[in-house]
Amino acid sequence: MTDERVAILGLGLIGGSVGACLRRAGMHVTGFDPDSTHASLARERELVDVAVPSVRQAVEGATTVLLAAPLSAIIELLPRVDALAPAGALIMDAGSVKRSVGQVMGALPGAARMVGGHPLAGDERSGPKAASPDLFAGSRFILSPTPRTEPAVLERARQIVHALGAEPEVVDAAVHDRVLARTSHLPQALASALAVSLDPGDMAFSGPGLRDMTRLAASDPTIWRDILLLNGDEVVDGMRRCAAQLSRLAALVQLQDATGVARFVETGRERVGGGK
Amino acid sequence: MTDERVAILGLGLIGGSVGACLRRAGMHVTGFDPDSTHASLARERELVDVAVPSVRQAVEGATTVLLAAPLSAIIELLPRVDALAPAGALIMDAGSVKRSVGQVMGALPGAARMVGGHPLAGDERSGPKAASPDLFAGSRFILSPTPRTEPAVLERARQIVHALGAEPEVVDAAVHDRVLARTSHLPQALASALAVSLDPGDMAFSGPGLRDMTRLAASDPTIWRDILLLNGDEVVDGMRRCAAQLSRLAALVQLQDATGVARFVETGRERVGGGK
Repeated sequence: MTDERVAILGLGLIGGSVGACLRRAGMHVTGFDPDSTHASLARERELVDVAVPSVRQAVEGATTVLLAAPLSAIIELLPRVDALAPAGALIMDAGSVKRSVGQVMGALPGAARMVGGHPLAGDERSGPKAASPDLFAGSRFILSPTPRTEPAVLERARQIVHALGAEPEVVDAAVHDRVLARTSHLPQALASALAVSLDPGDMAFSGPGLRDMTRLAASDPTIWRDILLLNGDEVVDGMRRCAAQLSRLAALVQLQDATGVARFVETGRERVGGGK
Repeated sequence: MTDERVAILGLGLIGGSVGACLRRAGMHVTGFDPDSTHASLARERELVDVAVPSVRQAVEGATTVLLAAPLSAIIELLPRVDALAPAGALIMDAGSVKRSVGQVMGALPGAARMVGGHPLAGDERSGPKAASPDLFAGSRFILSPTPRTEPAVLERARQIVHALGAEPEVVDAAVHDRVLARTSHLPQALASALAVSLDPGDMAFSGPGLRDMTRLAASDPTIWRDILLLNGDEVVDGMRRCAAQLSRLAALVQLQDATGVARFVETGRERVGGGK
Protein backbone atom coordinates (compact mmCIF):
# COMPACT_ATOMS: atom_id res chain seq x y z
CA MET A 1 0.00 0.00 0.00
CA THR A 2 2.98 2.32 -0.37
CA ASP A 3 1.23 4.22 -3.16
CA GLU A 4 -1.39 5.28 -0.60
CA ARG A 5 -1.77 9.03 -0.18
CA VAL A 6 -3.47 9.61 3.13
CA ALA A 7 -5.16 12.84 4.19
CA ILE A 8 -5.68 13.29 7.92
CA LEU A 9 -8.11 15.93 9.12
CA GLY A 10 -7.32 16.68 12.73
CA LEU A 11 -3.76 16.34 14.05
CA GLY A 12 -4.35 15.61 17.72
CA LEU A 13 -3.34 12.49 19.63
CA ILE A 14 -5.20 10.13 17.29
CA GLY A 15 -4.68 11.88 13.95
CA GLY A 16 -1.03 12.59 14.73
CA SER A 17 -0.39 9.00 15.79
CA VAL A 18 -2.07 7.63 12.63
CA GLY A 19 0.13 9.94 10.55
CA ALA A 20 3.35 8.88 12.29
CA CYS A 21 2.47 5.21 11.95
CA LEU A 22 1.36 5.28 8.30
CA ARG A 23 4.41 7.34 7.33
CA ARG A 24 6.58 4.69 8.93
CA ALA A 25 4.68 2.15 6.79
CA GLY A 26 5.78 4.07 3.71
CA MET A 27 2.61 6.00 2.92
CA HIS A 28 2.48 9.68 2.05
CA VAL A 29 0.59 11.67 4.68
CA THR A 30 -0.94 15.13 4.29
CA GLY A 31 -2.38 16.71 7.40
CA PHE A 32 -4.80 19.51 8.18
CA ASP A 33 -5.70 21.04 11.52
CA PRO A 34 -7.64 24.31 12.04
CA ASP A 35 -5.28 24.99 14.97
CA SER A 36 -2.07 26.18 13.31
CA THR A 37 -0.03 25.35 16.43
CA HIS A 38 -1.13 21.73 16.10
CA ALA A 39 -0.31 21.77 12.39
CA SER A 40 3.22 23.14 12.90
CA LEU A 41 3.95 20.79 15.75
CA ALA A 42 2.73 17.82 13.69
CA ARG A 43 5.11 18.85 10.93
CA GLU A 44 7.96 19.48 13.37
CA ARG A 45 7.52 16.06 14.95
CA GLU A 46 7.31 14.51 11.46
CA LEU A 47 3.85 13.06 12.11
CA VAL A 48 2.90 14.16 8.56
CA ASP A 49 4.85 14.68 5.35
CA VAL A 50 3.16 18.00 4.81
CA ALA A 51 0.67 20.13 6.75
CA VAL A 52 -1.67 22.25 4.62
CA PRO A 53 -3.94 25.13 5.65
CA SER A 54 -7.24 23.88 4.18
CA VAL A 55 -9.40 20.79 3.94
CA ARG A 56 -9.49 21.21 0.15
CA GLN A 57 -5.70 21.05 -0.12
CA ALA A 58 -5.52 18.14 2.28
CA VAL A 59 -7.90 15.83 0.40
CA GLU A 60 -6.61 16.79 -3.06
CA GLY A 61 -5.18 13.62 -4.65
CA ALA A 62 -5.87 11.55 -1.52
CA THR A 63 -6.57 7.82 -1.81
CA THR A 64 -7.69 7.67 1.83
CA VAL A 65 -9.16 10.42 4.00
CA LEU A 66 -9.28 9.98 7.78
CA LEU A 67 -11.36 12.36 9.90
CA ALA A 68 -9.75 12.48 13.36
CA ALA A 69 -11.52 15.46 14.89
CA PRO A 70 -14.08 15.96 17.66
CA LEU A 71 -17.36 14.29 16.62
CA SER A 72 -19.17 17.56 15.91
CA ALA A 73 -16.38 18.51 13.50
CA ILE A 74 -16.44 15.08 11.83
CA ILE A 75 -20.17 15.42 11.24
CA GLU A 76 -19.78 18.94 9.89
CA LEU A 77 -16.84 18.00 7.65
CA LEU A 78 -18.21 14.81 6.08
CA PRO A 79 -20.36 16.47 3.36
CA ARG A 80 -17.46 18.75 2.34
CA VAL A 81 -15.00 15.89 2.28
CA ASP A 82 -17.41 13.85 0.16
CA ALA A 83 -17.68 16.74 -2.30
CA LEU A 84 -13.93 17.41 -2.44
CA ALA A 85 -12.26 13.99 -2.24
CA PRO A 86 -11.22 12.26 -5.48
CA ALA A 87 -13.54 9.53 -6.77
CA GLY A 88 -12.49 6.18 -5.34
CA ALA A 89 -10.96 7.64 -2.18
CA LEU A 90 -11.76 5.71 1.00
CA ILE A 91 -13.30 7.97 3.64
CA MET A 92 -13.23 6.89 7.27
CA ASP A 93 -13.36 8.52 10.69
CA ALA A 94 -11.96 7.87 14.15
CA GLY A 95 -14.83 9.15 16.28
CA SER A 96 -15.93 7.45 19.49
CA VAL A 97 -19.67 7.29 18.69
CA LYS A 98 -20.67 5.40 15.57
CA ARG A 99 -24.44 5.77 15.07
CA SER A 100 -24.47 9.52 14.40
CA VAL A 101 -21.45 9.33 12.07
CA GLY A 102 -23.02 6.33 10.29
CA GLN A 103 -26.27 8.21 9.75
CA VAL A 104 -24.48 11.15 8.16
CA MET A 105 -22.28 8.88 6.03
CA GLY A 106 -25.24 6.77 4.91
CA ALA A 107 -27.12 9.81 3.63
CA LEU A 108 -24.29 11.24 1.50
CA PRO A 109 -23.83 10.69 -2.26
CA GLY A 110 -20.50 8.93 -1.59
CA ALA A 111 -21.84 6.60 1.14
CA ALA A 112 -20.51 3.52 -0.67
CA ARG A 113 -16.89 4.58 -0.09
CA MET A 114 -17.32 5.47 3.57
CA VAL A 115 -16.84 3.44 6.73
CA GLY A 116 -17.00 4.41 10.38
CA GLY A 117 -13.98 3.62 12.54
CA HIS A 118 -12.99 3.81 16.21
CA PRO A 119 -9.53 2.94 17.51
CA LEU A 120 -9.73 1.54 21.08
CA ALA A 121 -6.54 3.34 22.01
CA GLY A 122 -5.47 6.66 23.43
CA ASP A 123 -5.81 8.08 26.89
CA GLU A 124 -6.41 11.36 28.67
CA ARG A 125 -3.59 13.09 26.83
CA SER A 126 -4.38 15.18 23.80
CA GLY A 127 -2.67 17.07 21.01
CA PRO A 128 0.15 16.19 18.59
CA LYS A 129 2.73 16.44 21.40
CA ALA A 130 1.36 13.15 22.78
CA ALA A 131 1.18 11.36 19.40
CA SER A 132 3.17 8.17 18.87
CA PRO A 133 3.48 5.75 15.93
CA ASP A 134 3.00 2.90 18.42
CA LEU A 135 -0.28 4.15 19.91
CA PHE A 136 -2.36 1.49 18.14
CA ALA A 137 0.04 -1.46 18.38
CA GLY A 138 -1.87 -4.54 19.50
CA SER A 139 -5.10 -2.65 20.17
CA ARG A 140 -8.48 -3.17 18.57
CA PHE A 141 -9.93 -0.89 15.90
CA ILE A 142 -13.68 -1.03 15.46
CA LEU A 143 -15.05 -0.72 11.92
CA SER A 144 -18.76 0.07 11.57
CA PRO A 145 -19.81 0.04 7.91
CA THR A 146 -23.09 1.65 6.91
CA PRO A 147 -25.67 -0.42 4.99
CA ARG A 148 -24.36 1.26 1.82
CA THR A 149 -20.62 0.68 2.42
CA GLU A 150 -19.15 -1.47 -0.39
CA PRO A 151 -17.41 -4.69 0.73
CA ALA A 152 -14.23 -3.67 -1.13
CA VAL A 153 -14.18 -0.40 0.83
CA LEU A 154 -14.45 -2.27 4.12
CA GLU A 155 -11.57 -4.45 2.97
CA ARG A 156 -9.43 -1.38 2.26
CA ALA A 157 -10.26 0.00 5.70
CA ARG A 158 -9.11 -3.29 7.23
CA GLN A 159 -5.78 -2.92 5.44
CA ILE A 160 -5.30 0.58 6.82
CA VAL A 161 -6.07 -0.75 10.32
CA HIS A 162 -3.53 -3.54 9.87
CA ALA A 163 -0.98 -0.96 8.74
CA LEU A 164 -1.56 0.76 12.10
CA GLY A 165 -0.60 -2.46 13.88
CA ALA A 166 -4.17 -2.79 15.19
CA GLU A 167 -6.74 -5.55 14.87
CA PRO A 168 -9.86 -4.63 12.86
CA GLU A 169 -13.17 -5.77 14.28
CA VAL A 170 -16.45 -5.17 12.45
CA VAL A 171 -19.14 -4.15 14.93
CA ASP A 172 -22.62 -2.78 14.27
CA ALA A 173 -22.80 0.92 15.16
CA ALA A 174 -25.66 0.48 17.64
CA VAL A 175 -23.88 -2.39 19.43
CA HIS A 176 -20.66 -0.37 19.50
CA ASP A 177 -22.38 2.63 21.06
CA ARG A 178 -24.17 0.55 23.69
CA VAL A 179 -21.05 -1.32 24.83
CA LEU A 180 -18.71 1.68 24.65
CA ALA A 181 -21.22 3.71 26.69
CA ARG A 182 -20.47 1.37 29.60
CA THR A 183 -16.82 0.55 28.99
CA SER A 184 -15.49 3.94 27.90
CA HIS A 185 -17.97 6.82 28.10
CA LEU A 186 -19.31 5.91 31.55
CA PRO A 187 -15.81 5.63 33.11
CA GLN A 188 -15.05 9.05 31.63
CA ALA A 189 -18.26 10.53 33.07
CA LEU A 190 -17.51 8.95 36.46
CA ALA A 191 -13.97 10.31 36.53
CA SER A 192 -15.33 13.79 35.81
CA ALA A 193 -18.10 13.43 38.42
CA LEU A 194 -15.59 12.28 41.03
CA ALA A 195 -13.22 15.12 40.18
CA VAL A 196 -16.01 17.71 40.37
CA SER A 197 -17.18 16.33 43.72
CA LEU A 198 -13.74 16.76 45.30
CA ASP A 199 -12.86 19.83 47.32
CA PRO A 200 -10.05 21.92 45.85
CA GLY A 201 -6.99 20.68 47.71
CA ASP A 202 -8.13 17.07 48.05
CA MET A 203 -5.77 16.04 45.24
CA ALA A 204 -2.84 16.93 47.52
CA PHE A 205 -3.85 13.95 49.66
CA SER A 206 -4.20 11.60 46.72
CA GLY A 207 -2.64 8.18 46.47
CA PRO A 208 -2.40 6.04 43.33
CA GLY A 209 -6.07 5.02 43.70
CA LEU A 210 -7.46 8.52 43.36
CA ARG A 211 -4.97 9.40 40.66
CA ASP A 212 -6.13 6.44 38.55
CA MET A 213 -9.78 7.19 39.22
CA THR A 214 -9.46 10.82 38.13
CA ARG A 215 -6.86 10.42 35.37
CA LEU A 216 -9.54 10.48 32.65
CA ALA A 217 -10.94 13.71 34.07
CA ALA A 218 -7.97 15.49 32.46
CA SER A 219 -9.27 14.59 28.96
CA ASP A 220 -10.13 17.16 26.31
CA PRO A 221 -13.51 18.79 27.15
CA THR A 222 -14.54 19.39 23.52
CA ILE A 223 -13.99 15.79 22.49
CA TRP A 224 -15.88 14.49 25.51
CA ARG A 225 -18.72 17.01 25.28
CA ASP A 226 -19.39 15.64 21.77
CA ILE A 227 -19.11 11.98 22.79
CA LEU A 228 -21.41 12.31 25.80
CA LEU A 229 -24.01 14.30 23.86
CA LEU A 230 -24.01 12.10 20.76
CA ASN A 231 -24.19 8.87 22.75
CA GLY A 232 -26.54 10.51 25.24
CA ASP A 233 -29.27 7.86 25.39
CA GLU A 234 -26.83 5.03 26.10
CA VAL A 235 -24.52 7.03 28.39
CA VAL A 236 -27.35 8.36 30.52
CA ASP A 237 -28.57 4.79 30.98
CA GLY A 238 -25.08 3.70 32.10
CA MET A 239 -24.75 6.66 34.48
CA ARG A 240 -28.12 5.85 36.03
CA ARG A 241 -27.15 2.17 36.49
CA CYS A 242 -23.91 3.18 38.14
CA ALA A 243 -25.50 5.88 40.32
CA ALA A 244 -28.08 3.30 41.42
CA GLN A 245 -25.33 0.87 42.45
CA LEU A 246 -23.50 3.65 44.28
CA SER A 247 -26.72 4.52 46.14
CA ARG A 248 -27.27 0.85 46.97
CA LEU A 249 -23.76 0.59 48.43
CA ALA A 250 -24.30 3.83 50.37
CA ALA A 251 -27.50 2.39 51.85
CA LEU A 252 -25.73 -0.86 52.85
CA VAL A 253 -22.99 1.16 54.54
CA GLN A 254 -25.49 3.40 56.30
CA LEU A 255 -27.37 0.33 57.57
CA GLN A 256 -23.98 -1.08 58.70
CA ASP A 257 -24.86 -4.27 56.81
CA ALA A 258 -21.46 -5.99 56.98
CA THR A 259 -22.50 -9.03 54.94
CA GLY A 260 -24.15 -6.90 52.27
CA VAL A 261 -21.15 -4.56 51.93
CA ALA A 262 -18.69 -7.47 51.73
CA ARG A 263 -20.87 -9.18 49.13
CA PHE A 264 -21.08 -5.97 47.07
CA VAL A 265 -17.29 -5.55 47.02
CA GLU A 266 -16.87 -9.27 46.28
CA THR A 267 -19.30 -9.05 43.32
CA GLY A 268 -17.35 -6.14 41.85
CA ARG A 269 -14.13 -8.07 42.37
CA GLU A 270 -15.52 -11.06 40.48
CA ARG A 271 -16.83 -8.82 37.70
CA VAL A 272 -13.32 -7.50 37.00
CA GLY A 273 -11.74 -10.95 37.30
CA GLY A 274 -10.07 -9.91 40.55
CA GLY A 275 -8.54 -11.78 43.42
CA LYS A 276 -5.32 -12.35 41.50
CA MET B 1 17.34 1.62 66.06
CA THR B 2 18.96 -1.73 65.27
CA ASP B 3 18.08 -3.02 68.72
CA GLU B 4 14.42 -2.71 67.77
CA ARG B 5 12.44 -5.93 67.99
CA VAL B 6 9.32 -5.46 65.91
CA ALA B 7 6.22 -7.63 66.11
CA ILE B 8 3.90 -7.45 63.09
CA LEU B 9 0.36 -8.77 63.44
CA GLY B 10 -0.99 -9.44 59.97
CA LEU B 11 1.37 -10.41 57.15
CA GLY B 12 -0.52 -9.16 54.09
CA LEU B 13 0.64 -6.53 51.61
CA ILE B 14 1.20 -3.86 54.29
CA GLY B 15 2.47 -6.02 57.17
CA GLY B 16 4.73 -8.04 54.88
CA SER B 17 6.16 -4.90 53.28
CA VAL B 18 6.83 -3.30 56.69
CA GLY B 19 8.62 -6.48 57.75
CA ALA B 20 10.79 -6.64 54.64
CA CYS B 21 11.72 -2.97 54.94
CA LEU B 22 12.49 -2.96 58.68
CA ARG B 23 14.54 -6.15 58.36
CA ARG B 24 16.57 -4.45 55.67
CA ALA B 25 17.05 -1.57 58.14
CA GLY B 26 18.61 -4.06 60.58
CA MET B 27 15.67 -4.62 62.94
CA HIS B 28 14.50 -8.00 64.16
CA VAL B 29 11.00 -8.81 62.90
CA THR B 30 8.60 -11.40 64.31
CA GLY B 31 5.39 -11.98 62.42
CA PHE B 32 1.99 -13.47 63.14
CA ASP B 33 -0.88 -14.16 60.76
CA PRO B 34 -3.95 -16.30 61.55
CA ASP B 35 -3.72 -17.60 57.96
CA SER B 36 -0.88 -20.13 58.08
CA THR B 37 -0.37 -19.88 54.29
CA HIS B 38 0.37 -16.16 54.71
CA ALA B 39 2.71 -16.91 57.61
CA SER B 40 4.71 -19.53 55.69
CA LEU B 41 4.90 -17.39 52.57
CA ALA B 42 6.08 -14.38 54.64
CA ARG B 43 8.83 -16.56 56.10
CA GLU B 44 9.73 -18.05 52.72
CA ARG B 45 9.99 -14.60 51.15
CA GLU B 46 12.06 -13.45 54.17
CA LEU B 47 9.61 -10.68 55.01
CA VAL B 48 10.05 -11.64 58.68
CA ASP B 49 12.86 -13.22 60.70
CA VAL B 50 10.47 -15.63 62.27
CA ALA B 51 6.75 -16.36 61.96
CA VAL B 52 5.02 -17.56 65.12
CA PRO B 53 1.62 -19.17 65.57
CA SER B 54 0.17 -16.87 68.26
CA VAL B 55 -0.21 -13.19 69.14
CA ARG B 56 1.29 -13.94 72.55
CA GLN B 57 4.49 -15.32 71.05
CA ALA B 58 4.69 -12.49 68.52
CA VAL B 59 4.60 -9.64 71.03
CA GLU B 60 6.85 -11.35 73.59
CA GLY B 61 9.97 -9.19 73.98
CA ALA B 62 8.80 -6.71 71.32
CA THR B 63 9.86 -3.06 71.49
CA THR B 64 7.35 -2.12 68.78
CA VAL B 65 4.09 -3.82 67.85
CA LEU B 66 2.42 -3.01 64.52
CA LEU B 67 -1.14 -4.14 63.86
CA ALA B 68 -1.52 -4.56 60.09
CA ALA B 69 -4.81 -6.43 59.88
CA PRO B 70 -8.31 -5.58 58.66
CA LEU B 71 -9.77 -2.86 60.91
CA SER B 72 -12.19 -5.18 62.69
CA ALA B 73 -9.25 -7.39 63.65
CA ILE B 74 -7.16 -4.40 64.78
CA ILE B 75 -9.99 -3.27 67.06
CA GLU B 76 -10.46 -6.76 68.44
CA LEU B 77 -6.72 -7.31 68.96
CA LEU B 78 -5.81 -4.00 70.62
CA PRO B 79 -6.92 -4.91 74.21
CA ARG B 80 -5.06 -8.25 74.01
CA VAL B 81 -1.94 -6.63 72.62
CA ASP B 82 -2.06 -4.02 75.39
CA ALA B 83 -2.27 -6.78 77.99
CA LEU B 84 0.48 -8.91 76.45
CA ALA B 85 3.09 -6.45 75.15
CA PRO B 86 6.10 -5.59 77.35
CA ALA B 87 5.91 -2.31 79.25
CA GLY B 88 7.43 0.46 77.13
CA ALA B 89 6.62 -1.18 73.82
CA LEU B 90 5.28 1.20 71.17
CA ILE B 91 1.95 0.03 69.79
CA MET B 92 0.74 1.33 66.43
CA ASP B 93 -1.58 0.23 63.67
CA ALA B 94 -1.81 0.60 59.90
CA GLY B 95 -5.57 0.77 59.47
CA SER B 96 -7.25 3.08 56.97
CA VAL B 97 -9.77 4.65 59.38
CA LYS B 98 -8.40 6.48 62.40
CA ARG B 99 -11.31 7.62 64.60
CA SER B 100 -12.49 4.13 65.59
CA VAL B 101 -8.96 2.88 66.23
CA GLY B 102 -8.19 6.04 68.20
CA GLN B 103 -11.28 5.61 70.37
CA VAL B 104 -10.29 2.06 71.27
CA MET B 105 -6.66 3.03 71.89
CA GLY B 106 -7.65 6.04 74.01
CA ALA B 107 -9.76 3.89 76.34
CA LEU B 108 -7.11 1.24 77.05
CA PRO B 109 -4.78 1.21 80.09
CA GLY B 110 -1.75 1.55 77.79
CA ALA B 111 -3.14 4.46 75.76
CA ALA B 112 -0.03 6.56 76.41
CA ARG B 113 2.18 4.20 74.35
CA MET B 114 -0.22 3.92 71.41
CA VAL B 115 -0.50 5.88 68.19
CA GLY B 116 -2.69 5.40 65.14
CA GLY B 117 -0.99 5.12 61.76
CA HIS B 118 -1.95 4.91 58.12
CA PRO B 119 0.54 4.46 55.28
CA LEU B 120 -0.72 6.15 52.10
CA ALA B 121 0.67 3.33 50.00
CA GLY B 122 -0.47 0.03 48.62
CA ASP B 123 -2.90 -0.79 45.87
CA GLU B 124 -5.51 -3.36 44.90
CA ARG B 125 -3.11 -6.26 45.45
CA SER B 126 -3.18 -8.15 48.70
CA GLY B 127 -1.29 -10.83 50.59
CA PRO B 128 2.42 -11.39 51.33
CA LYS B 129 3.09 -12.39 47.71
CA ALA B 130 2.66 -8.70 46.76
CA ALA B 131 4.80 -7.34 49.62
CA SER B 132 7.88 -5.28 48.85
CA PRO B 133 10.45 -3.48 51.03
CA ASP B 134 10.05 -0.46 48.73
CA LEU B 135 6.27 -0.13 49.06
CA PHE B 136 6.50 2.95 51.29
CA ALA B 137 9.46 4.70 49.65
CA GLY B 138 8.67 8.37 49.21
CA SER B 139 5.04 8.01 50.31
CA ARG B 140 3.30 9.70 53.22
CA PHE B 141 2.50 7.94 56.47
CA ILE B 142 -0.22 9.54 58.57
CA LEU B 143 0.19 9.46 62.35
CA SER B 144 -2.91 10.17 64.44
CA PRO B 145 -2.04 10.29 68.16
CA THR B 146 -4.83 10.03 70.73
CA PRO B 147 -5.17 12.77 73.35
CA ARG B 148 -3.34 10.40 75.73
CA THR B 149 -0.42 9.50 73.43
CA GLU B 150 2.89 10.59 75.00
CA PRO B 151 5.04 12.94 72.87
CA ALA B 152 8.02 10.55 73.17
CA VAL B 153 5.86 7.75 71.78
CA LEU B 154 4.87 9.87 68.80
CA GLU B 155 8.56 10.60 68.24
CA ARG B 156 9.37 6.88 68.23
CA ALA B 157 6.57 6.28 65.73
CA ARG B 158 8.09 8.97 63.50
CA GLN B 159 11.40 7.13 63.59
CA ILE B 160 9.75 3.87 62.53
CA VAL B 161 8.06 5.71 59.65
CA HIS B 162 11.39 7.20 58.58
CA ALA B 163 12.91 3.71 58.69
CA LEU B 164 10.21 2.70 56.18
CA GLY B 165 11.42 5.43 53.83
CA ALA B 166 8.14 7.28 54.26
CA GLU B 167 7.33 10.81 55.40
CA PRO B 168 5.43 11.03 58.72
CA GLU B 169 2.57 13.54 58.86
CA VAL B 170 0.60 14.11 62.03
CA VAL B 171 -3.09 14.50 61.22
CA ASP B 172 -6.08 14.58 63.54
CA ALA B 173 -8.11 11.37 63.24
CA ALA B 174 -11.34 13.15 62.32
CA VAL B 175 -9.63 15.23 59.62
CA HIS B 176 -7.91 12.11 58.30
CA ASP B 177 -11.18 10.21 58.04
CA ARG B 178 -12.99 13.07 56.31
CA VAL B 179 -10.30 13.64 53.69
CA LEU B 180 -9.55 9.95 53.10
CA ALA B 181 -13.28 9.31 52.67
CA ARG B 182 -13.11 11.42 49.52
CA THR B 183 -9.61 10.65 48.28
CA SER B 184 -9.39 6.92 49.00
CA HIS B 185 -12.60 5.33 50.27
CA LEU B 186 -14.90 7.02 47.76
CA PRO B 187 -12.73 6.05 44.75
CA GLN B 188 -12.80 2.47 46.07
CA ALA B 189 -16.60 2.54 46.42
CA LEU B 190 -16.94 4.03 42.93
CA ALA B 191 -14.71 1.38 41.38
CA SER B 192 -16.85 -1.32 42.99
CA ALA B 193 -20.10 0.39 41.94
CA LEU B 194 -18.85 0.70 38.36
CA ALA B 195 -17.73 -2.93 38.31
CA VAL B 196 -21.05 -4.15 39.69
CA SER B 197 -22.98 -2.08 37.14
CA LEU B 198 -21.16 -3.68 34.20
CA ASP B 199 -22.60 -6.61 32.30
CA PRO B 200 -20.50 -9.77 32.52
CA GLY B 201 -18.48 -9.68 29.33
CA ASP B 202 -18.10 -5.89 29.20
CA MET B 203 -14.52 -6.19 30.47
CA ALA B 204 -13.61 -7.94 27.19
CA PHE B 205 -14.22 -4.58 25.47
CA SER B 206 -12.20 -2.62 27.98
CA GLY B 207 -9.47 -0.17 27.17
CA PRO B 208 -7.00 1.36 29.61
CA GLY B 209 -9.65 3.81 30.87
CA LEU B 210 -12.01 1.13 32.15
CA ARG B 211 -9.13 -0.94 33.49
CA ASP B 212 -7.90 1.99 35.57
CA MET B 213 -11.39 2.84 36.75
CA THR B 214 -12.08 -0.72 37.93
CA ARG B 215 -8.59 -1.68 39.14
CA LEU B 216 -9.45 -0.93 42.77
CA ALA B 217 -12.52 -3.17 42.50
CA ALA B 218 -10.13 -6.13 42.75
CA SER B 219 -9.19 -5.16 46.33
CA ASP B 220 -9.67 -7.42 49.34
CA PRO B 221 -13.39 -7.45 50.31
CA THR B 222 -12.76 -7.96 54.06
CA ILE B 223 -10.42 -5.00 54.33
CA TRP B 224 -12.80 -2.76 52.42
CA ARG B 225 -15.94 -3.94 54.18
CA ASP B 226 -14.29 -2.77 57.43
CA ILE B 227 -13.10 0.55 56.01
CA LEU B 228 -16.45 1.46 54.46
CA LEU B 229 -18.40 0.49 57.57
CA LEU B 230 -16.08 2.19 60.06
CA ASN B 231 -15.88 5.40 58.04
CA GLY B 232 -19.54 5.08 57.12
CA ASP B 233 -20.73 8.61 57.95
CA GLU B 234 -17.98 10.29 55.92
CA VAL B 235 -18.01 7.76 53.07
CA VAL B 236 -21.77 7.89 52.63
CA ASP B 237 -21.53 11.67 52.41
CA GLY B 238 -18.85 11.39 49.70
CA MET B 239 -20.86 8.80 47.77
CA ARG B 240 -23.91 11.05 47.86
CA ARG B 241 -21.90 14.06 46.64
CA CYS B 242 -20.49 12.03 43.80
CA ALA B 243 -23.83 10.41 42.89
CA ALA B 244 -25.36 13.89 42.83
CA GLN B 245 -22.69 15.13 40.42
CA LEU B 246 -23.18 12.05 38.25
CA SER B 247 -26.93 12.74 38.17
CA ARG B 248 -26.30 16.39 37.33
CA LEU B 249 -24.08 15.38 34.40
CA ALA B 250 -26.70 12.83 33.26
CA ALA B 251 -29.33 15.57 33.29
CA LEU B 252 -27.11 17.94 31.27
CA VAL B 253 -26.50 15.18 28.72
CA GLN B 254 -30.19 14.32 28.53
CA LEU B 255 -31.05 17.99 27.98
CA GLN B 256 -28.32 18.06 25.29
CA ASP B 257 -26.87 21.11 27.05
CA ALA B 258 -23.58 21.36 25.14
CA THR B 259 -22.25 24.32 27.10
CA GLY B 260 -23.18 22.74 30.43
CA VAL B 261 -21.56 19.39 29.59
CA ALA B 262 -18.36 21.05 28.34
CA ARG B 263 -18.22 23.20 31.47
CA PHE B 264 -18.71 20.15 33.69
CA VAL B 265 -15.84 18.26 32.04
CA GLU B 266 -13.70 21.39 32.14
CA THR B 267 -14.35 21.85 35.88
CA GLY B 268 -13.27 18.27 36.55
CA ARG B 269 -10.19 18.81 34.44
CA GLU B 270 -9.23 21.88 36.43
CA ARG B 271 -9.88 20.07 39.71
CA VAL B 272 -7.29 17.39 38.84
CA GLY B 273 -4.82 19.94 37.50
CA GLY B 274 -5.39 18.68 33.95
CA GLY B 275 -4.79 20.08 30.52
CA LYS B 276 -1.12 19.16 30.68
